[in-house]
Amino acid sequence: MSLSMYDAAVPGMVRSLKNLDAILDKAVAYSERKKVDPTVLVGSRLAIDMLPFSTQIHRATETARGGAARLAQVEIPSFPDEDKTVADLKNRLARTIAFLESVPTEKFTGAEDRTVTQKLAGKDMTFPAKQYLFGFLIPNFYFHVTTAYAILRHNGVEIGKIDFLRGI
Amino acid sequence: MSLSMYDAAVPGMVRSLKNLDAILDKAVAYSERKKVDPTVLVGSRLAIDMLPFSTQIHRATETARGGAARLAQVEIPSFPDEDKTVADLKNRLARTIAFLESVPTEKFTGAEDRTVTQKLAGKDMTFPAKQYLFGFLIPNFYFHVTTAYAILRHNGVEIGKIDFLRGI
Repeated sequence: MSLSMYDAAVPGMVRSLKNLDAILDKAVAYSERKKVDPTVLVGSRLAIDMLPFSTQIHRATETARGGAARLAQVEIPSFPDEDKTVADLKNRLARTIAFLESVPTEKFTGAEDRTVTQKLAGKDMTFPAKQYLFGFLIPNFYFHVTTAYAILRHNGVEIGKIDFLRGI
Repeated sequence: MSLSMYDAAVPGMVRSLKNLDAILDKAVAYSERKKVDPTVLVGSRLAIDMLPFSTQIHRATETARGGAARLAQVEIPSFPDEDKTVADLKNRLARTIAFLESVPTEKFTGAEDRTVTQKLAGKDMTFPAKQYLFGFLIPNFYFHVTTAYAILRHNGVEIGKIDFLRGI
């Protein structure tokens, strides 16, 4: 049994996006109990010059779908930039999960020998695929998922580490 | 060129721990400028029932060294539980990096076919090594590193995404 780029990239992100969807449901239930419009949480930040919850979800899903597509050399699906409501965010999560699950495993065969080009800070950068996956894609994905979690946690939503790690 | 469990596990964590060390230096400089004892930041949290900065570093390093040792089937080094000061935390980061860099790459050969046992929530759990690496070790590691970053960011330390991703 060998290790593939698919193993390293896809199942963990799918699991994590599903957990994020469940966490979002808890955030909505919390908002309702507090009699606060859930869009308040969607717009919340940890610092005034940090991205709000909605954009954390946007970046996590963008990193996941763009990263998987680049590694598998398939077209990156384009999603409308409309994360205004909880329903929009749940829709974005569902479409990202469906895309990740739709890419055939075989498309990742040999991906460890590819190079990947992605615009970072406005510049096209090219990386060996392994460096891209472990140096950018995975850390950046979990950065945004964890920050989304942290914003909710900071606002009092009752979630714990198990909500983040569920489905290990 | 194939993909190894070493590629997937070690270089990314080493890079991230080095970045965390540099972030800690920025946190100290910020505290000095604000004339606040840096141990205030070390004890800061995003919510009263969430772990403080020091424990986020503790968990990140524990996850890294325990995870790498379990995958490589080498002894887990034990570190004293004394994260009280910035110096303690920097020492912990340095020792973890040195340990990760000391484990011979060959020890990871064939690790994808091993099983790994780790106590989680007080119970010994056994996982296929790939599931352990991508379902627990990596997400949990980045969870604690990102939360440490978020605690500093929330307190006004001037750091950006590049401080988290440096060395890609």
